[in-house]
Amino acid sequence: MTSTPAHAQTFRAIDIIRKKRDGGELSRAEIESLVSAYARGDIPDYQVSAWLMAVVIRGMTRAETAALTDAMLHSGEVLDLSSLSAKKVDKHSTGGVGDKTSLVLAPLAAAAGVVVPMISGRGLGHTGGTLDKLEAIPGFNVNLTVAQFRRVLETCGCAMIGQTAEIAPADRKLYALRDVTGTVESPYLICASIMSKKLAEGIDALVLDVKTGSGAFMKSEQDAAFLADLMVETGERMGKQVVALITDMDQPLGNIIGNALEVVEVVEVLRGEGPRDLRQLCLELAGWMLHLGGVSDTVAQGKEQSERLIASGKALDKFRQMVALRGGDPRTIDDPKKLPQALHTMTLSSPKNGYLAVWQCEQVGTACVILGGGRERKEDSVDPAVGIVLHKKVGDTVSSGEPLATIYYNAEARAARARQLLEQSYQIADSPTHEKRPLIHRVIGKPGEKN
Amino acid sequence: MTSTPAHAQTFRAIDIIRKKRDGGELSRAEIESLVSAYARGDIPDYQVSAWLMAVVIRGMTRAETAALTDAMLHSGEVLDLSSLSAKKVDKHSTGGVGDKTSLVLAPLAAAAGVVVPMISGRGLGHTGGTLDKLEAIPGFNVNLTVAQFRRVLETCGCAMIGQTAEIAPADRKLYALRDVTGTVESPYLICASIMSKKLAEGIDALVLDVKTGSGAFMKSEQDAAFLADLMVETGERMGKQVVALITDMDQPLGNIIGNALEVVEVVEVLRGEGPRDLRQLCLELAGWMLHLGGVSDTVAQGKEQSERLIASGKALDKFRQMVALRGGDPRTIDDPKKLPQALHTMTLSSPKNGYLAVWQCEQVGTACVILGGGRERKEDSVDPAVGIVLHKKVGDTVSSGEPLATIYYNAEARAARARQLLEQSYQIADSPTHEKRPLIHRVIGKPGEKN
Repeated sequence: MTSTPAHAQTFRAIDIIRKKRDGGELSRAEIESLVSAYARGDIPDYQVSAWLMAVVIRGMTRAETAALTDAMLHSGEVLDLSSLSAKKVDKHSTGGVGDKTSLVLAPLAAAAGVVVPMISGRGLGHTGGTLDKLEAIPGFNVNLTVAQFRRVLETCGCAMIGQTAEIAPADRKLYALRDVTGTVESPYLICASIMSKKLAEGIDALVLDVKTGSGAFMKSEQDAAFLADLMVETGERMGKQVVALITDMDQPLGNIIGNALEVVEVVEVLRGEGPRDLRQLCLELAGWMLHLGGVSDTVAQGKEQSERLIASGKALDKFRQMVALRGGDPRTIDDPKKLPQALHTMTLSSPKNGYLAVWQCEQVGTACVILGGGRERKEDSVDPAVGIVLHKKVGDTVSSGEPLATIYYNAEARAARARQLLEQSYQIADSPTHEKRPLIHRVIGKPGEKN
Repeated sequence: MTSTPAHAQTFRAIDIIRKKRDGGELSRAEIESLVSAYARGDIPDYQVSAWLMAVVIRGMTRAETAALTDAMLHSGEVLDLSSLSAKKVDKHSTGGVGDKTSLVLAPLAAAAGVVVPMISGRGLGHTGGTLDKLEAIPGFNVNLTVAQFRRVLETCGCAMIGQTAEIAPADRKLYALRDVTGTVESPYLICASIMSKKLAEGIDALVLDVKTGSGAFMKSEQDAAFLADLMVETGERMGKQVVALITDMDQPLGNIIGNALEVVEVVEVLRGEGPRDLRQLCLELAGWMLHLGGVSDTVAQGKEQSERLIASGKALDKFRQMVALRGGDPRTIDDPKKLPQALHTMTLSSPKNGYLAVWQCEQVGTACVILGGGRERKEDSVDPAVGIVLHKKVGDTVSSGEPLATIYYNAEARAARARQLLEQSYQIADSPTHEKRPLIHRVIGKPGEKN
């Protein structure tokens, strides 16, 4: 009644499921056979979901995680960019609110001579997505074939696209299954999903921005560090240089949340302006990209070089070139009015004097989703014009009646729901008691030292 | 990337999966909604298999186990046998090798005036199944509708049938999914599966025979006792009298394995003959059935009454009546030659003098499956004629060249494979060192004391 005899066992999937269920370590061959059979459609979803649940609860060793990443990576095409002589470096963020650093970093690093092959995602849950932000630029086409992707890289040194059918198809299939079976929240599965896609880009090095705080998926520093360490080791096992920065997502990054509005803030940073936290994080990540890309000896030199590329206008020129190459309207860069505009605005004001103590970050992100800036259901379309502009950040003094945020909206009912959520998402304290969290918590991995 | 926001969650299945994944206790309503939605086809297999794996690893509380049993029970028809004035008592075994006690007990208890509504299963893995044994009797029809089942019960007091579409349909669907997703081995799921079907029979009391040893699914005494305790408590929570006997399955029960051959041994026991261990276990279980069925004050008295019903021929008469009522040929009872006969026999002899120390029970059961007496694949048909007769039991003295077992077979190739396995399944020791295991290890639950 409780087991199938070994001699009647003709298919190996069930043995692999049971081994992981009982806490065993799977061999590389077992993981490879399971992933490739699933990608081919030779194992049903219900077996793989049972296995995924066993992985979520039992965990994986580092060797298993690397084997899973490798199997997912090789389920599809792995780009060979060796014809491009410069080093290929990408940056990946685990997702946050107001995080538009990718749009700054791709042209900035490309302007420095690093090749940036960047395959990005869409907004998920309360977080924004790079593809949604790029598509806010009228005409911008994120759907390139691998051949077109390669041509754009050759022409301007950076290309930002959506996932293609050729790249890590096993990940796409597994991710869809994880999403509906409660098996998303596993650092091992998250690591394999991210790293398999990134390693398929043909990169030499990878800079990871692992977010932590109320607006991050990894709320605790400990969880973020565990995932970061796992990704760094997995990348190293695959022969890549990988560094992970644990960065703060306890309040939104920069002042703006919303797709077209964020493009405006990106252009500000590329002009040497924009909010301090966003500028600082972009320079830190750029410093690492330039260092790992071999165009600066140290991270500090990479940051300085990035500042010069911004000051000289070369970074913004590269952004303009990239937008034009992709069918986007480059006039939007100098004239933000050419970006999609919301019909209405509404201001949220402080009810009292004091200090802004909290901007609960997931709630702010969710408020933007409610406005239409993200998807409440997968099939929803995104409204590029809507969003939220924050006038105060955590630690700022505020006076009674002073604007805290402006809501950009197109639909009254959505704005009312978003406002209600925003009103619950901040706290005004009488004294500046809030201990300020650093923007960069720590750096995991020291790939530069191995050069 | 790692979670779906609460406001976008429209279907509860994923919340239930995640709660169990994280080790939480599910409410009765949550379990009921999951099981009923699955039975209706409103939740896909891949979500339920992820949930099942979480249950296997995280376990369930007693309240959850009872709620699951109840939900599965009420997914179908629950028989109302209150029109029959006698108490309704069933016996269920967790499965073993050579275990033909059901065929003895149903007519024996019915002869004592207890009503025995018994829904049985087929052989699974290395174990035999009551339905396969009954079908070895030419003409015997195990597939009755619920209405026919009730009529047979009214006429002769016992009815042994296969699971019907009306009884616990959620269990049938869940069991098929568990079988292919590595989620069979969970005492909580095993308990709910067994108890939901048994409680659907409209019984007042249940005697459980939980096997332990090399031929049982629960190899360890500890696992067997845990399952037994879980089933007793679950039955009690549903208002039934339940007792569980932990019994030995370290060697086959009785001397015969194989469907038609076992019918012969059943008739021997009903005549007051047959092997001592099988007779002892039948009387012990019958004692409990009669006691819980209210026809004897104590278990000991129930055993004595059972012995008298055997000695008087009334138990065998009841068996004959049941066989005839079900379309079976009653002449098989007095003339075993009318049962299906194997074409060939082959003898396995002892290579030396000594004491039989081990009959590895699962291997002996598997040898019978290989002969065709069970199913290697689900779609296989069963050969009723084949089997194995053991001439020695553990502890017996053996001489060099003396027969240990006779193989009854129809196909040379199968016989050769079975013989090879049988040869690996015994050990002859020089001295009687083997500590003899008791047949009845312990009794769990004291339902009689609550009368």
